[in-house]
Formats: sequence, structure tokens, C-alpha cells
Amino acid sequence: MQHESTPPPGPRTRRTEGTRVHGRAERVVSAVLAATHEELGRVGYGALRIEDVAARSGVNKTTIYRRWPTKSELVAASLRAANEEQEAVDTGTLRGDLLAVVMRSVRLCQTPTGRGIVRMLQMERADPEVEAISRALRDRRQQRNTAMLERGITRGELPADVNLELIHDLIFGGIFTRLIQRGEDVSEDYAAAAIDTVLAGARAGAARLPR
Amino acid sequence: MQHESTPPPGPRTRRTEGTRVHGRAERVVSAVLAATHEELGRVGYGALRIEDVAARSGVNKTTIYRRWPTKSELVAASLRAANEEQEAVDTGTLRGDLLAVVMRSVRLCQTPTGRGIVRMLQMERADPEVEAISRALRDRRQQRNTAMLERGITRGELPADVNLELIHDLIFGGIFTRLIQRGEDVSEDYAAAAIDTVLAGARAGAARLPR
Repeated sequence: MQHESTPPPGPRTRRTEGTRVHGRAERVVSAVLAATHEELGRVGYGALRIEDVAARSGVNKTTIYRRWPTKSELVAASLRAANEEQEAVDTGTLRGDLLAVVMRSVRLCQTPTGRGIVRMLQMERADPEVEAISRALRDRRQQRNTAMLERGITRGELPADVNLELIHDLIFGGIFTRLIQRGEDVSEDYAAAAIDTVLAGARAGAARLPR
Repeated sequence: MQHESTPPPGPRTRRTEGTRVHGRAERVVSAVLAATHEELGRVGYGALRIEDVAARSGVNKTTIYRRWPTKSELVAASLRAANEEQEAVDTGTLRGDLLAVVMRSVRLCQTPTGRGIVRMLQMERADPEVEAISRALRDRRQQRNTAMLERGITRGELPADVNLELIHDLIFGGIFTRLIQRGEDVSEDYAAAAIDTVLAGARAGAARLPR
């Protein structure tokens, strides 16, 4: 990694404050990705300008271009980073893990930046770059969630022959259609009842597909 | 209703062939709505031209404008008509009704016109007219599905205190996120397992919300 710019000013960055373990290069990366994330929520993909990311992060444009040669790479990296921050959920139960992951995403979708990004992913879907970024994010999230469901099978919380894709589609598709497509609120009680319904149906042996 | 144009040529119309009960005015209406539906699937909303609907239906433009003064009204009427054609599902069981409604929509989404319309509803969502049409359709469909679920409660197939919105979100949100957002196939076995999982969870008492 080669960076030449100054570290970003404090208030705009997310991960730099109070950390001493990160080097300067890492601080630059996280400042640029955080600024990209905020700009994306503010103006969307089509209107996002590297100049504005540079101004917001305090990192100069050539440094940004050196690491992320295209806007599409920069935006993909920024959304991936925001997603990775969410990796470590392990409450000890499948129900707890599902509820934690769902509610964290629900809350994220309800911040101004989150709302802007959700809107961008929907409204600019006709742009093939946005579609590709969106698909990669979705695949990444589905992998993480599938691993979570597999831990539930290992712990005996789900029958071993359950169809994991089906469980995933019902819980995440059901809740996020409500939140994102229909724009309705998802309370923690609502999310918990959705998860409990699907898990109870799966435990009753219904979530199998004939081979 | 005042119409002055000639009836549409047979092969383009959907509901006129073999019927003697419909009057000429009704034949004109259904020809125009069918032609609008096909044009919508072919070119989307923004690019749809009343001229092309007129040519396809054999009904002249002034007749079309007299009944539907704006493109938005014409398109809304066309999608509503295609939706109403689907009203009468009553298999005698909730599971049967749900499976019939879901699979009919799945098949519709897989025809060239259906695929085009789904694509239009997604890609042109930034257009407030498309968004309003889409919302009205969704509300209409949700009403119909809720009535179906209520019949299931009446017949004792679901607990009386079940949350119907939750059941609806899980089944329809789950299945159509898979089909439409992710572009993956939904087989009849898959849809049946999804419906069975949610109904079994609801029967186990999980699909309730605290008051």
C-alpha cells in the first residue's frame, strides 16, 4: 500500500479515533471508505464525485485513484467494509444470532446514510455497475448468514435436512421486503416473531425439499 | 362509456374471442388494456407511446385519450385489469389457495411480458408515477391475500390470534425476493415448502405479536 496524503481530520472518520494499533496507511484507507459511504448515502452512485470524497476525507484525489482506480471499485470497497464491520455476531443461539443480525441491518437502514444507500441501490439499479456491486454485497451477506444457520444445525437447533436457502429467503426476504420495498417499520418484536415462526416451521419438519 | 372506434382485430385481444356477452365498448376497453400490457412489457413505462398502443390494439388514439386522459391512468388500469383476472382462487384449503396464487404469479413473472413488466417496475422506480402505480398494485394484492388468509382463520387452519401481516410478509416477501430481486427460480416444490414452513410455524403459535 502506498499513500502519501495526510491522515484525515478526526470528526469525519469512524475507525481512527482512540486506536493506536492502526498505521497511517490504514487510517487513510478507513477515512476514504467512510467518506465514500457517507457521500453515497448523500448523493447516490451516479452523482458521487471522487473530489467530494477527497474533500470529506482529507485525503488527496491522486492517492484515492492510486488505490481504487475506478469509482465502482471504491464504492464496492466502501460497502464491503461497512458490511465486514458487522461480521462478528455469536450470541450462542441461532435465534439470538438471527435477531442480532436482522436488527442491526434494520437500524442501519434507518440512519440517514443507510436510507440513502438503500434508495441508491434501488433507484440506480438500472446502472450495471450498481447492479454488480449490489449482487456482490448480497452474495457476501448470504454466505455469512448461511454459516450462521449451519452453526444452528451443528448445535441441534435446526433439523439437519433443513433447506438453508429456504430458511434464509423466508426470514431475510420477508423482513426486508417489508422494510425496504414497502417502507414499513420493523420492530424487534416483529423481527422476533418472524424468526420464531420460520424456526418453528423448520423444527416441525416443513422446510425440506424433495430430492 | 363513449367509444367510437372499430373493435380490435382478433389475434391481439385476450378476452374477446368466443365471447358473445361483451358489448363492443367492453371489447375496445379490453383490447386497449391488453395492448398496453404488452407494450409495457416490451418497452417499459417511460418509453411507452400511446401511438403504439393504438396501433397494436387497432383502437384510435383519441378514443384511448378520451377514456384514459394520461399514460399513468392507462397503465394503472392495464395492470389492475391483469391483476383482477387473477381474483378467483378458492381451492378449499388455505395451503391450496396460497400455492395457487403464488405459482400463478411466479409463472406470470416468467413470461416475456411479465419479465418486462417486473423489470420496468424495478428499473423505473425512480419515476413517481411508476412508484404510485406499483404501490397501488401491491396494496390491492395484499388486500386480496389478506382476505384469503382470513378465510383460513375462519376454517380453523390458522390460530385466530395470528398476525396476518407477518404471515403475508414471510410467504410473499420470501418467495418474491428470491424470484425478483435475486432472479432465482421458484419451483412448485420450493413454494410449497415455503408455505408449509410458515403455516406450521403459525400453527405452533409463533406468529403472534405482543400487544
